[in-house]
Amino acid sequence: MATEPNARPGKIEVHPIVTVDDHDSLSRVYTPGVAEDVERVADDADAVTEVTGIGNRILVVTDGSAILGLGDVGPKAGLPVMEGKSVLFKTLAGIDAWPLPLASRDVEDLAHTIRDVAVGVSGVNIEDVAAPRCFELVERLQAELDIPVFHDDQHGTAVVVLAALRNALRVVDKDMDEVSVVVSGAGAAGSAITRLLLDRGVRRIVVCDSQGVLHSGRDLDGEKAWLAEHTNPDGVDGDLGDCLAGADVFIGVSAPELVDGDMLESMADDAVVSGLANPDPEFDPDEAHRHAAVIGTGRSDLPNQINNVLAFPGIFRGLLDGGVRRVDSAVLAAAADAIAALVEEPGPESIVPDLFDDRLVDRVAAAVAGA
Amino acid sequence: MATEPNARPGKIEVHPIVTVDDHDSLSRVYTPGVAEDVERVADDADAVTEVTGIGNRILVVTDGSAILGLGDVGPKAGLPVMEGKSVLFKTLAGIDAWPLPLASRDVEDLAHTIRDVAVGVSGVNIEDVAAPRCFELVERLQAELDIPVFHDDQHGTAVVVLAALRNALRVVDKDMDEVSVVVSGAGAAGSAITRLLLDRGVRRIVVCDSQGVLHSGRDLDGEKAWLAEHTNPDGVDGDLGDCLAGADVFIGVSAPELVDGDMLESMADDAVVSGLANPDPEFDPDEAHRHAAVIGTGRSDLPNQINNVLAFPGIFRGLLDGGVRRVDSAVLAAAADAIAALVEEPGPESIVPDLFDDRLVDRVAAAVAGA
Repeated sequence: MATEPNARPGKIEVHPIVTVDDHDSLSRVYTPGVAEDVERVADDADAVTEVTGIGNRILVVTDGSAILGLGDVGPKAGLPVMEGKSVLFKTLAGIDAWPLPLASRDVEDLAHTIRDVAVGVSGVNIEDVAAPRCFELVERLQAELDIPVFHDDQHGTAVVVLAALRNALRVVDKDMDEVSVVVSGAGAAGSAITRLLLDRGVRRIVVCDSQGVLHSGRDLDGEKAWLAEHTNPDGVDGDLGDCLAGADVFIGVSAPELVDGDMLESMADDAVVSGLANPDPEFDPDEAHRHAAVIGTGRSDLPNQINNVLAFPGIFRGLLDGGVRRVDSAVLAAAADAIAALVEEPGPESIVPDLFDDRLVDRVAAAVAGA
Repeated sequence: MATEPNARPGKIEVHPIVTVDDHDSLSRVYTPGVAEDVERVADDADAVTEVTGIGNRILVVTDGSAILGLGDVGPKAGLPVMEGKSVLFKTLAGIDAWPLPLASRDVEDLAHTIRDVAVGVSGVNIEDVAAPRCFELVERLQAELDIPVFHDDQHGTAVVVLAALRNALRVVDKDMDEVSVVVSGAGAAGSAITRLLLDRGVRRIVVCDSQGVLHSGRDLDGEKAWLAEHTNPDGVDGDLGDCLAGADVFIGVSAPELVDGDMLESMADDAVVSGLANPDPEFDPDEAHRHAAVIGTGRSDLPNQINNVLAFPGIFRGLLDGGVRRVDSAVLAAAADAIAALVEEPGPESIVPDLFDDRLVDRVAAAVAGA
């Protein structure tokens, strides 16, 4: 950051796109000139997109309960992340995204506030809200609001994982409906990934949380109960190591260093492994190289960086441009397919496009707008 | 507004002040680099002002219940005004002010939402919320939040009216503690003006609403009951015309065309009259010229434009720079005195400085920060 006397900290500012420097421009931008715009919207609510920036404006909302891998650090500590997100929305997709940390923690309170502020924007990006709170919050908002509600930790992660998986399976020549998949992590990301893979035809998935495999014999409720009911068709009981034996695909959205060399070795031939734990993956990447055919991580210093930045700018651009009001599986799958399609010939070290591929946002946006 | 293909409607955008154009800059602005800032704030909440833009950031909040002179047109219709306000905050005072229209109407709901979003900013500018709701809302927020809450329709208007009155009384050589003042309008502005003038030593004030003079014999509650109790020391009963007879000062924050030539003629010699009704003052300006010594209006095409733009940019700059947590009478009076002092030799057509006087914001800010 600059060090001039006037430099202020932070990553974004509000920038006027009209000039006020004399009495004439003041009366156009403020009173009394603005009264004409007010009356237009009062007469016809839809005119608000013609006389204000609402059509290109979203809120980036967090309660600070699950910031990065750092956990419940509170809404103020989440602000650096939200500002960074705003920078990416604007730089990559031209979207005006304002960070709105919230002091509330209760789902009821959060939903109240977000419903209240949603009247002034065209979309809500929920960020870093802890599971299971995030499931109920997003579901309620999606039902109650007439603008799209996107939870990056659920939807964004599911999209990039599906995109990467599509190309990885091309590399190893296996089919989505035949592979067996192990998902480590039953939080926001693990749940959304599982739901999207099920929707896209994957039939054999088991999900593990820190207590082991989710199955109907465990005492589970809410989202985990749903997952236990809809996955694990063979009724496997055991820990992560037990289900990895013979699996084709490992997807980690959990914690570092859960998977060792022996566990990787026990997987099927030509295994595909993605470890997205922050800052270190679920497995040692060097170790994984000895046992798996395709390896993805969240790290920028390794090939196959599976990063939500591939998804959220283009998805929101498409939601806004297409007037899409609900983020459903069709939207997410369309985005994933558009991302995957940017890699013409996937290889072991190229299952996802570069984050700065200049076709990325437009292709994803077009796919979402048309979904 | 421009008509290029990429031009979007509206008056503001979110502008990144850091660049993201490669993997290195991405990891600094977003993950994993931002984790360091998050941890700093998690360890020490005050560090948030060092690593984010929160210290220069406020919200411009409305429920759309009293937009300009147009009344209850709703929060979306208020957005053009709020965007204009954001432009002025940034252009004149360098403050990042984000427009946040709210769907709620109930004081309880509005207070809930504003408390919730206040965690991410350093001030709240309430705008165009109808009386009497605004009184309870502002009072509650001021008691509950540790950042300044400023209601422009109350505080801003009171400041510019006091500034104008100070200089007008210099022109006619009368003293604040001796003049008799008639305030027309008992809403947000009328109430705040009356309170500030009482605080500053004006002893003889009567306030009129659309039913006539406020006095203790009327069936009043809330703010109007308070006003009836603390004004009208002589117990005048009657209408606006009755109390204008012999008055030194008329301040209108009510409706156009309430005061005719005969009423103006009945006032004391060297009367000072301010008519701030939108878009037309309480009196005909030409008529006023025949009867009053000093005339102020909200109009930009006449001398003595009494406009809140004189006050709110500098006041908020001072609140932020000085870490002032409460907007009280001392703050408002300091701002008014700083505005008035910019006119070295007040005359009948120069009781307020020009809105674009380049000393204005700095002087007001310094006065507020030191109040």
